[in-house]
Amino acid sequence: MAGLFISFEGIDGVGKSTQADLLEKFLVDAGQTVVRTLEPGGTELGVEIRQILLHHKGGIAPRSEALLYAADRGHHVATKIRPALERGEIVISDRYLDSSIAYQGAGRDLSRKEVRDLSMWATGNLLPNLTVLLDLPAEVARARRNQTGTEPDRLEREKTEFFESARQAYLDLAAAEPERFIVIDASQSVEAMAEQIKTKVASLL
Amino acid sequence: MAGLFISFEGIDGVGKSTQADLLEKFLVDAGQTVVRTLEPGGTELGVEIRQILLHHKGGIAPRSEALLYAADRGHHVATKIRPALERGEIVISDRYLDSSIAYQGAGRDLSRKEVRDLSMWATGNLLPNLTVLLDLPAEVARARRNQTGTEPDRLEREKTEFFESARQAYLDLAAAEPERFIVIDASQSVEAMAEQIKTKVASLL
Repeated sequence: MAGLFISFEGIDGVGKSTQADLLEKFLVDAGQTVVRTLEPGGTELGVEIRQILLHHKGGIAPRSEALLYAADRGHHVATKIRPALERGEIVISDRYLDSSIAYQGAGRDLSRKEVRDLSMWATGNLLPNLTVLLDLPAEVARARRNQTGTEPDRLEREKTEFFESARQAYLDLAAAEPERFIVIDASQSVEAMAEQIKTKVASLL
Repeated sequence: MAGLFISFEGIDGVGKSTQADLLEKFLVDAGQTVVRTLEPGGTELGVEIRQILLHHKGGIAPRSEALLYAADRGHHVATKIRPALERGEIVISDRYLDSSIAYQGAGRDLSRKEVRDLSMWATGNLLPNLTVLLDLPAEVARARRNQTGTEPDRLEREKTEFFESARQAYLDLAAAEPERFIVIDASQSVEAMAEQIKTKVASLL
């Protein structure tokens, strides 16, 4: 395929959408055609699936939840990402399969391998050319999301542990595929991060 | 598990719900506790997924469609079917995994093995104790569904070919697992079919 597929990953609060915005602007200014998208909910069908995932009242069985994320991803790839890549365009997605592996692996109901296999089947084995992982300790990311300065309650502490597990899962994924991942220290300034990402992407064009 | 899980299968128009009604009545009269259910849409989450499957405007990528059916099934098993079986009850479901295999296999985008593997993963490998396949040529089932007596148009003929492929897939599945399936000739009277199904189910109690 002629295009370039870039995903942004990391736990909430690390600054994915800011960096995706800056990269998009850089590429458009350089004359590239960019398709900016996200998961879950990057297609009309995906918006309907996202509605269930985020707003269904009552629990969702863990395998069923994994299947819904994979359904969103399969349709996203088949109808939006793959056609854009075949037209030679650059796709920037806020989250892709590593999110499922990191979060569902952190949840411990399912193995990382099961979740990965499901996404690979759903997408016909489409991996990004580059995955930008923005890395920050969960405690710091939490403080950025919620700058109240109050002590974290039990739920906040549990959430922080969960996000720290997801963060560690992301770092494992990056270590296992160093040719696909670039890990960015998200405690740096917005500008410093953007510069590192631009340099990496420019080397792939 | 102490309970008994029975699925009804067959193409539209063969009389599945009539036979499921009669079997449910027979079992309740015999003092059994019966959970009557269906796919897709046997749970609240399933109703939301069914809404997407049946009413989404625009196409759904084949793998995404298979994943949505599997998501419905996984939640159905985890929250309704398996708990009922663990309580020792009898579950009667109008359609289960063989519907996915027969219809998606007939569509030719996906292999029967892929669709089966997906459902087995979704359900933690839960197969029915008995699957009642009501068998009728697609042409006859079509005439029953639509008794106008007019000549079939192109779409009707294509549909008939599709349903005949699904019918053949069902017969293959039954031949491959004779210990799980009972195949009922659905050209017989309602009473004659009900009698054969009752006799079979009584032998399993």
